Amino acid sequence: MMEPVNRGIDQRLFAYILDHNNKAPFYVELGVKTRMLGPDCAEMFITAQPQHANQMGIIHGGVISTLADVSMANAVRTTGRLAVTADYTVSFLCPAPMEGELVGRGSVIKAGGKIVFARADILCGDKIVAISQGAFSVIGNIDYGNEQ
Amino acid sequence: MMEPVNRGIDQRLFAYILDHNNKAPFYVELGVKTRMLGPDCAEMFITAQPQHANQMGIIHGGVISTLADVSMANAVRTTGRLAVTADYTVSFLCPAPMEGELVGRGSVIKAGGKIVFARADILCGDKIVAISQGAFSVIGNIDYGNEQ
Amino acid sequence: MMEPVNRGIDQRLFAYILDHNNKAPFYVELGVKTRMLGPDCAEMFITAQPQHANQMGIIHGGVISTLADVSMANAVRTTGRLAVTADYTVSFLCPAPMEGELVGRGSVIKAGGKIVFARADILCGDKIVAISQGAFSVIGNIDYGNEQ
Amino acid sequence: MMEPVNRGIDQRLFAYILDHNNKAPFYVELGVKTRMLGPDCAEMFITAQPQHANQMGIIHGGVISTLADVSMANAVRTTGRLAVTADYTVSFLCPAPMEGELVGRGSVIKAGGKIVFARADILCGDKIVAISQGAFSVIGNIDYGNEQ
Repeated sequence: MMEPVNRGIDQRLFAYILDHNNKAPFYVELGVKTRMLGPDCAEMFITAQPQHANQMGIIHGGVISTLADVSMANAVRTTGRLAVTADYTVSFLCPAPMEGELVGRGSVIKAGGKIVFARADILCGDKIVAISQGAFSVIGNIDYGNEQ
Repeated sequence: MMEPVNRGIDQRLFAYILDHNNKAPFYVELGVKTRMLGPDCAEMFITAQPQHANQMGIIHGGVISTLADVSMANAVRTTGRLAVTADYTVSFLCPAPMEGELVGRGSVIKAGGKIVFARADILCGDKIVAISQGAFSVIGNIDYGNEQ
Repeated sequence: MMEPVNRGIDQRLFAYILDHNNKAPFYVELGVKTRMLGPDCAEMFITAQPQHANQMGIIHGGVISTLADVSMANAVRTTGRLAVTADYTVSFLCPAPMEGELVGRGSVIKAGGKIVFARADILCGDKIVAISQGAFSVIGNIDYGNEQ
Repeated sequence: MMEPVNRGIDQRLFAYILDHNNKAPFYVELGVKTRMLGPDCAEMFITAQPQHANQMGIIHGGVISTLADVSMANAVRTTGRLAVTADYTVSFLCPAPMEGELVGRGSVIKAGGKIVFARADILCGDKIVAISQGAFSVIGNIDYGNEQ
């Protein structure tokens, strides 16, 4: 079990985000884990489990959508902003097999004062299985002990 | 516990869709149930459970996205087409509280030979908490005993 | 030539929106006209012209996208909010022929303080040729002489 | 005036796409030009003109949306597939000023047999002003003299 990696954000913000991710009920339910947090980026993953399958025996789109959402949302959090998902689009490029890890790589493309725009790629191994683009509405700053 | 209602599709297609929904692992995992199937429309629901919550104590967007996806996908199935989600957009209008039922109403807007376009509204009581729009790629017909 | 209809918004707001629409250079360039403004809704149209065609001799998606955007944006304006398009999705259901009028019907689905969510249908005659869903970022109130 | 650059696609396909772009009425109307075509990618541009402005004196979203659509559509064409836009999402990161060139960089992310998925970035100078993601429905192959 790999520990989550901090690629350069404030250590207190890193700890804050991890702590919240570990406690979020739906993250626990689905098995969403944090792999990496860095400036404007985040990597989250889910280990495929039988209960993630759809009728065709591949990973249900809802699991992939959730991973897209949380990858972008965590990338947004690395900016120190408290934000909620306003909307996102997810495109399913190919089936995601029921094996190994599903990895979501989220990136902030533009961090505005009101809206943060982000993208995510969802990968199975080296293969991109889905791409996503979303808008996050800023509602404040994360209170992690920063003096600002 | 209400039984799913057939508002006018072929009874064998109705039985086929229900049977598949009841067996789909991720539907079972999340508690996705079928309420109604009719021509070009479907109503699906989830009873809010503690494990559906996000860090803020409201229903996680991934639950809502999944309900949007399955509401549209089931509306698509009522056309007799076998299809996979190509992409969809979901917009989160307001927080969905952790109580009662979250209902997804999917409608086919245009059923093409290659792509079926659909919309969904997600409701908590009378309030629309999310709206969605998606494209479904047709891969064949559902084999439910229809002679055609 | 039909006059734009006011279906129930403040007459000064109606006049303000019309005046701005008439002066907007890209509206003039494309031939975008206002047909109706009402509470939370707007109807805009474009008369198909040869220069709107794509390589296949049907109306270019960019014309349809623009009409979707302006239909939603004008519906948003009827709420008195000054807002800019944050994002929108447009789905092309079928080809739009080079004849008659292309009509966009925009509706506000949720008018929040920060973001307004809207939908639009684009029609050729009775046929829906495109559907759209968007988010508009509120930057203030329209100053049309309202005392509030 | 720079000539369009071929970064590695079949010369006949390159000539075919350019010829069609030069003749497309809405491209001519808006001033859409081809800068580069390569394997799975395309760069298109528009020189900002006064008629492209919205009411606020910046480039109208419809111009940006059109550039996003054509950048992705031309990237799709470099695969030799004949396709139509099924849907796309465009997010407006910041205002696009009325000066210089607006450049759209489209990339194919996944070229399937039925649907091609693409992304685009829209730039003013070095600044990304919009991002886009779309699905294109394959209707055949481009007949440019290829033996296959």
